[in-house]
Amino acid sequence: MPLSRDGRVPLYYQIYDVLKEEIENGTYLPGSQIPSEAELGKRFNVSRITVKQAIQKLVVDGYLYRQQGKGTFVSKPRVNRKLSELISFHDEMLEKGFVPTSRILEFRVIPAQGVVAQALEVPENEKVIQIVRLRLADDEVMAIQSSHVPYDLCPELANRRDQLTDSLYKLLKTEFNLVPATGRESYKAVVVRGKDARILGVMDGSPAFSVRRYAYLEDGTPIEYAESLLRADRYTLDVELKGV
Amino acid sequence: MPLSRDGRVPLYYQIYDVLKEEIENGTYLPGSQIPSEAELGKRFNVSRITVKQAIQKLVVDGYLYRQQGKGTFVSKPRVNRKLSELISFHDEMLEKGFVPTSRILEFRVIPAQGVVAQALEVPENEKVIQIVRLRLADDEVMAIQSSHVPYDLCPELANRRDQLTDSLYKLLKTEFNLVPATGRESYKAVVVRGKDARILGVMDGSPAFSVRRYAYLEDGTPIEYAESLLRADRYTLDVELKGV
Repeated sequence: MPLSRDGRVPLYYQIYDVLKEEIENGTYLPGSQIPSEAELGKRFNVSRITVKQAIQKLVVDGYLYRQQGKGTFVSKPRVNRKLSELISFHDEMLEKGFVPTSRILEFRVIPAQGVVAQALEVPENEKVIQIVRLRLADDEVMAIQSSHVPYDLCPELANRRDQLTDSLYKLLKTEFNLVPATGRESYKAVVVRGKDARILGVMDGSPAFSVRRYAYLEDGTPIEYAESLLRADRYTLDVELKGV
Repeated sequence: MPLSRDGRVPLYYQIYDVLKEEIENGTYLPGSQIPSEAELGKRFNVSRITVKQAIQKLVVDGYLYRQQGKGTFVSKPRVNRKLSELISFHDEMLEKGFVPTSRILEFRVIPAQGVVAQALEVPENEKVIQIVRLRLADDEVMAIQSSHVPYDLCPELANRRDQLTDSLYKLLKTEFNLVPATGRESYKAVVVRGKDARILGVMDGSPAFSVRRYAYLEDGTPIEYAESLLRADRYTLDVELKGV
């Protein structure tokens, strides 16, 4: 399909549309490198500046990603997180067809401080179990998650590190009869640098979602407070809206 | 309150907590400059590195923001967007106690292309009314929003530019009897640069939410497709979750 050159739609935008379509229909597979700017310029018979603009928009929109010194590649499909369900990372990934795994970075009993004590509605310095996990899908890092559970609700959890390779919620449910029933989350858009960027496997200055989750038992007792960082290139947040 | 120096809680974190509390209780007012690193170091009797760490965390968490060459300031309160309501920017800001205004950057009839045509379920090149607006709260830029409405549903809208200084939804409702009844949104975390950063009034490389909204009439007819960029330092997305 030749580009339309009547000036109504910018050339870079038409190229963006063609390449996006080719990514979506599988002409370019996830993880594969796209042709060079010179090659694309030749194919579309446009300047390299125009190709650059189209690629920049594909990167911004998450269809492509750049690896410094290596080139530009097709992004893996994103996880569309449906904002309404109190679901574990594990089950969310299974639902989307990924194989979820976890790496435990930290597992310890600590005194609750500040926001953690407030969120779990326990006095300052009350014992909480902190579990910091790297969450992966198909062996790729998706998120870092730091969960806190009141120690007094399930002291025995502190001995179950080995069972935490999949879902914390499943473990709470099956072993301790503690069922997270309701919750709320708040999302910020942030930029990650340094250690966080390295752990997530993204470049310094990449965007991410910073999330706080508050989960409660049926009777309103706080059961979990979690802080997470989600890779922005792997998540879109979807929400249904109703008229007010 | 003296800092605890038993090593259980890092000093920078304790300073972070003290300053956060002071921001929240109004000791430091929104928009005011905080004391210099040297002054804070003196006050808490810690090294400047430790002060830097505390301030960095307050910036990352959105309590403070930096202005190049000027200093570090207390952030304005964020808008907590409740993710479930199909509400206009105008009404959302009123609800939060801000005075909403708009600046129209673009108002025109264009042929629908690609994602716009798909979203509005009209053939390619069908006429749509595009309205690009800068949305402000208390005279501060919060978002850039590009709305698209099918021309055929309300051709007369194309002559109502002057009435678009407040809510598009109100105008659609009162003048054209078109009531947006349901919708969905998807949120990405992105980094803004160049023109977008300048328009939003943030530094190059700042985070933002990139949002797509699809709004429908009661009978399912698409009435609006909008692409927005929200300043990440002014928005938090809140959502209620139910167990599954």
